[in-house]
Amino acid sequence: MELPISPLAPQSLAVLPPIDGVRMATAAAGIKYEGRTDLLLMAFDAPASVAGVFTQSRCASAPVEFCQANLAGGAARALVVNSGNANAFTGKRGSVASMITARVAAEAVGCETGEVFLASTGVIGEPLDADAFAAVLTGLAGVLRADDWTDAAEAIMTTDTYPKMATSSIRVDGTDITLNGIAKGAGMIAPDMATMLAFLFTDAAIAPDVLQALLSDGVGDTFNAITVDSDTSTSDTVMLFATGAAAGRGAPRIADIRDPRLVAFRDALNGLMKDLALQIVRDGEGARKLVEIAVTGAESDRAAKAIALSIANSPLVKTAIAGEDANWGRIVMAVGKAGEKADRDRLGIWFGDVRVAVDGERDPDYSEEAASTVMKHPEIDITVDVGVGSGSARVWTCDLTKEYVAINGDYRS
Amino acid sequence: MELPISPLAPQSLAVLPPIDGVRMATAAAGIKYEGRTDLLLMAFDAPASVAGVFTQSRCASAPVEFCQANLAGGAARALVVNSGNANAFTGKRGSVASMITARVAAEAVGCETGEVFLASTGVIGEPLDADAFAAVLTGLAGVLRADDWTDAAEAIMTTDTYPKMATSSIRVDGTDITLNGIAKGAGMIAPDMATMLAFLFTDAAIAPDVLQALLSDGVGDTFNAITVDSDTSTSDTVMLFATGAAAGRGAPRIADIRDPRLVAFRDALNGLMKDLALQIVRDGEGARKLVEIAVTGAESDRAAKAIALSIANSPLVKTAIAGEDANWGRIVMAVGKAGEKADRDRLGIWFGDVRVAVDGERDPDYSEEAASTVMKHPEIDITVDVGVGSGSARVWTCDLTKEYVAINGDYRS
Repeated sequence: MELPISPLAPQSLAVLPPIDGVRMATAAAGIKYEGRTDLLLMAFDAPASVAGVFTQSRCASAPVEFCQANLAGGAARALVVNSGNANAFTGKRGSVASMITARVAAEAVGCETGEVFLASTGVIGEPLDADAFAAVLTGLAGVLRADDWTDAAEAIMTTDTYPKMATSSIRVDGTDITLNGIAKGAGMIAPDMATMLAFLFTDAAIAPDVLQALLSDGVGDTFNAITVDSDTSTSDTVMLFATGAAAGRGAPRIADIRDPRLVAFRDALNGLMKDLALQIVRDGEGARKLVEIAVTGAESDRAAKAIALSIANSPLVKTAIAGEDANWGRIVMAVGKAGEKADRDRLGIWFGDVRVAVDGERDPDYSEEAASTVMKHPEIDITVDVGVGSGSARVWTCDLTKEYVAINGDYRS
Repeated sequence: MELPISPLAPQSLAVLPPIDGVRMATAAAGIKYEGRTDLLLMAFDAPASVAGVFTQSRCASAPVEFCQANLAGGAARALVVNSGNANAFTGKRGSVASMITARVAAEAVGCETGEVFLASTGVIGEPLDADAFAAVLTGLAGVLRADDWTDAAEAIMTTDTYPKMATSSIRVDGTDITLNGIAKGAGMIAPDMATMLAFLFTDAAIAPDVLQALLSDGVGDTFNAITVDSDTSTSDTVMLFATGAAAGRGAPRIADIRDPRLVAFRDALNGLMKDLALQIVRDGEGARKLVEIAVTGAESDRAAKAIALSIANSPLVKTAIAGEDANWGRIVMAVGKAGEKADRDRLGIWFGDVRVAVDGERDPDYSEEAASTVMKHPEIDITVDVGVGSGSARVWTCDLTKEYVAINGDYRS
């Protein structure tokens, strides 16, 4: 199925600068798609610090297990990503396919298999013929370039309608540090895990355990705060690679999570992750509306997030938004079903700036017209105060349209 | 929106016989709909034993709270149900509207308000003008009949495309006992509560606490084992009324849950509830497929049900079914995200009789054609063995179609 570009796509694509020590190449290996790239090799000239967070699925894919095992080493020389086949639920053959891929990549870039990281995205359950793209990988190692970020982002797409990229630069101790990120994802997007594929790169010099702490902390309000359809992938992977090349230009080497020089980096990293996470929601399958849901007044931040996700995942809320219907009764329903403490008689609900409910009933000044006007916008903020405490959370989702059904009733065939 | 009758509707409507001690009448009170009935009064000639289970929503409706309070008395003389307005999230005015309705009903049938039970279904958050239909209720009390079951079932419909009815009769100690039930529901249907509105009636003579035990136990594998869209209503109500009139014909009076004469009644009751529950799924908004999901080999029955519901509520599984796509990779995904113990490498999956996956990978004899043939049927059985224990569960759902989106993007306006 040829999909039109999401109407919520960013106005322009980010232009990612080179990052010292990172090179890349892509190829059309014919894994599933015809006439497009589906294989990405990223290589690190010297071992990069690496951190990762992965799906919480009990049926995690072979590449996820492979990465988790290698993460203990903390060093990366290569990242191989293929689209079109998730190599998930492929049994022992899946593990073998991952190992074959890693061996070829290790040989091609001249490293150990323990320094190779893998990700696969696409159909679940289809055996992955790794032999077929091994030869292609070897060729890619000979044509690595530092400025192919858009090609890299495109090679990992599946039902995505545009490549997802973001960049940020900060100054630490007088030295410029760059962060780049690419991501993919449009469906099977749900929270409580590292959502879908996202790869972040920096030339900062940061030890693996510090990198891991920053990443694990940062996903909570970014990748783990988005949902397209409540479905959690078997392959979700977010990895952060730090080449340390900026140290050659005078940047500090940081090995302590309490180092104050991390503040700017942490902010930039979290900003980059939020940017990419929102790009994923903006490309939510069939999406026409980007919805930010803020919950306040909950018993705890955790409870607030549970309520926010109950709203964000409700098919009835999402179809109402698709229909531009200010149906706040369905918000009440979703608060009620979340199972978290909420005071029905103190509940307040806002669509944008329009308060539609207060103290557990319709706002005395309720204006259907004002609420409906908000619903016509492509970006809609919904705020809910549940009136029992000071916990708060913010999540992002999209609407549920007939196009989502069409895309997913016909994805595999 | 005028909806066509669900293609999964039963071939014919059940014909419900009178039940001694139960009479009913319906009216078009103009609560929301034009040109159709929306108000039902059921009256019990003598106080009936009553049991009920209700929504677990933290934002339960005023009528739900009213019923819960009256249930302690264990006796019912009247049941009033309106469609078109749920009287939910209506604050103090909602409680007042319930009390007004109960007072008028109590006066009309000659009983206490503590013997009146109420249910409302329809839009959430809209104030219910109880005064408007109070007068109508008084009139209904004068035209009560014993054989208006179809009219009763029709008066409580909202987006339902057909009235839901079931009947069963058993012989206990040589006396015939009848059970009748009516239900409504097509959207905002989800488990872990008493799903939507269902009212069950019998002439058996059974004490309220025994009746409650039977009902609470029976909902687990019936009303609480169905899901249309994972959304839990604020108004879900299942009530069981026993007039005891059969005692006059020699039926036993039962006051002990261990009474062996309850066996046949319990079976009939559970059968009736399952029948009505499946009628609700068959009328799932936009549904074209009825899907039974059986999970075996789980750590416990509870875990099996959680996995089954994860599958049944997955938008990606439901859209694949709508597209008649034997996309069992999405079943794997849904098992993985359920968070319950499952052995990925022992997982087996069947569509109908066709085994598509075994021991954690695609069946060696997998036939896309055989699997696809199963998917074309209007009723599809999916079986999943998760390979870790002996827990099992069975749930029912429907597919997710463009029509669901259309119905719910345009319900309120």
